[in-house]
Amino acid sequence: MAESLRIYTAALVVIGDEILSGRTHDKNIAQVAAWLGVQGIRLAEVRVVPDVTAAIVEAVNTLRLRNDYLFTTGGIGPTHDDITVDAIAEAFGVEVVVHPQARAILQEYYATRGGLTEARLRMARVPEGADLIPNRYTGAPGIRFDNVFLMAGVPQITAGMLDALSGTLPGGAPLLSETVGCWVPESEVADLLRETEKAHATCQIGSYPFWREGRTGANFVIRSVDAEDLAACTRALIRGLQAMDRPPYPGGI
Amino acid sequence: MAESLRIYTAALVVIGDEILSGRTHDKNIAQVAAWLGVQGIRLAEVRVVPDVTAAIVEAVNTLRLRNDYLFTTGGIGPTHDDITVDAIAEAFGVEVVVHPQARAILQEYYATRGGLTEARLRMARVPEGADLIPNRYTGAPGIRFDNVFLMAGVPQITAGMLDALSGTLPGGAPLLSETVGCWVPESEVADLLRETEKAHATCQIGSYPFWREGRTGANFVIRSVDAEDLAACTRALIRGLQAMDRPPYPGGI
Repeated sequence: MAESLRIYTAALVVIGDEILSGRTHDKNIAQVAAWLGVQGIRLAEVRVVPDVTAAIVEAVNTLRLRNDYLFTTGGIGPTHDDITVDAIAEAFGVEVVVHPQARAILQEYYATRGGLTEARLRMARVPEGADLIPNRYTGAPGIRFDNVFLMAGVPQITAGMLDALSGTLPGGAPLLSETVGCWVPESEVADLLRETEKAHATCQIGSYPFWREGRTGANFVIRSVDAEDLAACTRALIRGLQAMDRPPYPGGI
Repeated sequence: MAESLRIYTAALVVIGDEILSGRTHDKNIAQVAAWLGVQGIRLAEVRVVPDVTAAIVEAVNTLRLRNDYLFTTGGIGPTHDDITVDAIAEAFGVEVVVHPQARAILQEYYATRGGLTEARLRMARVPEGADLIPNRYTGAPGIRFDNVFLMAGVPQITAGMLDALSGTLPGGAPLLSETVGCWVPESEVADLLRETEKAHATCQIGSYPFWREGRTGANFVIRSVDAEDLAACTRALIRGLQAMDRPPYPGGI
């Protein structure tokens, strides 16, 4: 198979009682998903697990083996509930060590901020053999071990870490997409969607209904790795909606 | 164990390519989590899986067996990519049938909206033996089968279905929480957090740092099923922060 046709996948494990309690609305799923798309990597599955070592180990060991990459967010800070590094080391059966470069980064960062305390030194701990991912905002770096990438829970810091990784991970052809919106109950166009998808072998059409101010509408998202087929499928869908007197909104509503 | 001390758990499977592509920001995790909390049920795990039958079946069969309840969102509409009902039936090894009451509901709903077409009738299909969950906004009901609850993907519609279920599911003592915020790097208070948690056996303290306009702060969330211990732990944390000259913000920042 040509390299460009190989599909690369990633999984994401969101580590956080705060998401499971409903207190915090997760922002990392969408940002990691969008970033992966640009890298030509598909997000295949997400799991949100509590701050419990066994739960993290189970998710990590299942997902790292069946994907090219595994990302985690959360639990790499200095407090007692930050257990991600230990869980990843346990998942791989390796020791946790202090990374000399991470210690040096933290030493410099905290030089003018009260010094490198024992709690702060926790953020230099990594599974033995790990590499660091730069953190442009605060001291503590992210961590790469094997095909696993440990990112921060704070979305802005994760954004900086993703940026540092941009272009460094082998990926495949990016999945392209077009969106067409329409003020129509999706049930009216179910046949059109199915037939249009069937006529364009590389394309998948997702139908995402919404309901605003008592009106029903839907956005139809066409996805393909083949730009030409994508364009043809999008044109066919637009023509189909027009033929039903349902004005299409290219780009979505 | 007394009924009030039994812990009830639920899992959530979010079914949706649109979440995994990064196109749509999920809103159902937070709303289901918050609703479960009020019912005295803990959200133990979330999985986001693609619109692929095998992926749905695997997640459902793993999670329904180790939780009291399993919720799914998405994939119960009328289009070709709505495969949740079939996947749940496959997971349980039962047939898919048309539910007479669901058909009647749809017949009435679509009487003034173009009639009950074949595509729309898809929304009356259920795993054999299922019950319906009322949908107050649009016609198609949610579905309950065994301990699995199939909800809509559209958050407003799911909200209505959750509302219809309120108070109907046995739960345990609700997990209570208090939040204390502070403009402090969490690394400075790591020892205080660990010791305060250790001194209050029923409590767990989560530390959720943030980073706004160049300043670091954190919210500390204390959780317990014991109101008295929760209050004592919260007071102890507030006193501890004050003793460090770090003004606490009860209720969080």
